[in-house]
Amino acid sequence: MRVYYQDTDAGGVVFHGQYLGFMERARTELLNAAGFDLARLADVERLMFLVFQIAIKYHQPARLNDMLGVTAEVAKMGKASVVFRQRVERGAQLLVEADVTLALVDRDRLRPARFPAGLAQELEQALK
Amino acid sequence: MRVYYQDTDAGGVVFHGQYLGFMERARTELLNAAGFDLARLADVERLMFLVFQIAIKYHQPARLNDMLGVTAEVAKMGKASVVFRQRVERGAQLLVEADVTLALVDRDRLRPARFPAGLAQELEQALK
Amino acid sequence: MRVYYQDTDAGGVVFHGQYLGFMERARTELLNAAGFDLARLADVERLMFLVFQIAIKYHQPARLNDMLGVTAEVAKMGKASVVFRQRVERGAQLLVEADVTLALVDRDRLRPARFPAGLAQELEQALK
Amino acid sequence: MRVYYQDTDAGGVVFHGQYLGFMERARTELLNAAGFDLARLADVERLMFLVFQIAIKYHQPARLNDMLGVTAEVAKMGKASVVFRQRVERGAQLLVEADVTLALVDRDRLRPARFPAGLAQELEQALK
Repeated sequence: MRVYYQDTDAGGVVFHGQYLGFMERARTELLNAAGFDLARLADVERLMFLVFQIAIKYHQPARLNDMLGVTAEVAKMGKASVVFRQRVERGAQLLVEADVTLALVDRDRLRPARFPAGLAQELEQALK
Repeated sequence: MRVYYQDTDAGGVVFHGQYLGFMERARTELLNAAGFDLARLADVERLMFLVFQIAIKYHQPARLNDMLGVTAEVAKMGKASVVFRQRVERGAQLLVEADVTLALVDRDRLRPARFPAGLAQELEQALK
Repeated sequence: MRVYYQDTDAGGVVFHGQYLGFMERARTELLNAAGFDLARLADVERLMFLVFQIAIKYHQPARLNDMLGVTAEVAKMGKASVVFRQRVERGAQLLVEADVTLALVDRDRLRPARFPAGLAQELEQALK
Repeated sequence: MRVYYQDTDAGGVVFHGQYLGFMERARTELLNAAGFDLARLADVERLMFLVFQIAIKYHQPARLNDMLGVTAEVAKMGKASVVFRQRVERGAQLLVEADVTLALVDRDRLRPARFPAGLAQELEQALK
């Protein structure tokens, strides 16, 4: 994805909070490619993923008009949570890396929920 | 309100889309001061305001750490809509001005809704 | 472009200010396709485009996971400004349309600037 | 600070990336109260703080119209970096907590810089 003015700040680089947005896009695309539509999950199953924990390191800043690659892979799957390992790269150069832990919650009460039967395996297989 | 790095872009000034956020904050504060809680309106009455039209002019850019004043006044009230006239100022200097038209909609179907009995007058009086 | 959680608000639809971001991405891609690198323009020529005026109408809201098309075409070119006509569409359905006027400014003093010799014609031709 | 529609997402809660913005505002206010103007630091000293590392935990989500308190205290000061411990609270309830490590960098080359003579002590004293 390209870096637009909207992603940058007066320091001339991408605002640090914006990388969380980039990473969410990559996770969503991964889930979509695996057949998971988060909007349907929310509407039909009344479930959604909430970010529970992030550990992020910023190595090099991205700049206006840079073309970035953002990766996402599943590092760990629990009964009600998933840990994604994600990287933001410019060519071969690592700019930012993060471990992002998501918890599955009931959409209406925002309480922890377990994966519906089949969903965890389906997710695990699809994301391999 | 103060201008933080998150509000600016690589041009060294506030990103043009961000002023719409500043203006929304001012409208919300005005409504709250008038006794309207938008969260309650959404949850209890199942109604919300959607922005329907904006005409905005940018005269001077705001910069990092500027202290801005943002005004909002009701320019016109219809049966299902409100027009706010808003200004963003730095001291006596006008930076941005806009007319923002909001439509009241049914939250679930997003169809136009009329103000419930009493609400329009209440709103009109409160906002004077 | 796809609609992610980051683009939406608690109304369940895309936040109205976010469409300005979508439209900036489309303008930037158009300029890039025409051989204009805004980062280079800023660094080398010390020039940048500032949004000067927007008139925008919201017809239908976009929702989570929608795939949107965003168009940008040059409606008018002046000596120091450009007007883009832009549309956000979901399939054949028009969601949002706007006229966005950009002014060319000197990056350091933020004062109006004229297009350097050749740039206006180059731009006009490229954008046809 | 209040939670506006712009801070929330279609999950009905504050978007997880937005808390980094809330925390930046609190750090900036703390620095300003201590006599540090980040805009002046950037313009005069050609220095700025870049976020280098964040460890963040989300305990409870914030919702539309919530009034939040955001704290920032200096947990550790190095020769070229500062660690802030920050909390986002709603009344007595802890919603989010984070350790945010900032590095001082040369604004033009974005290389690590040391605090100018006096600045570190001044900062340390002011922030106590």
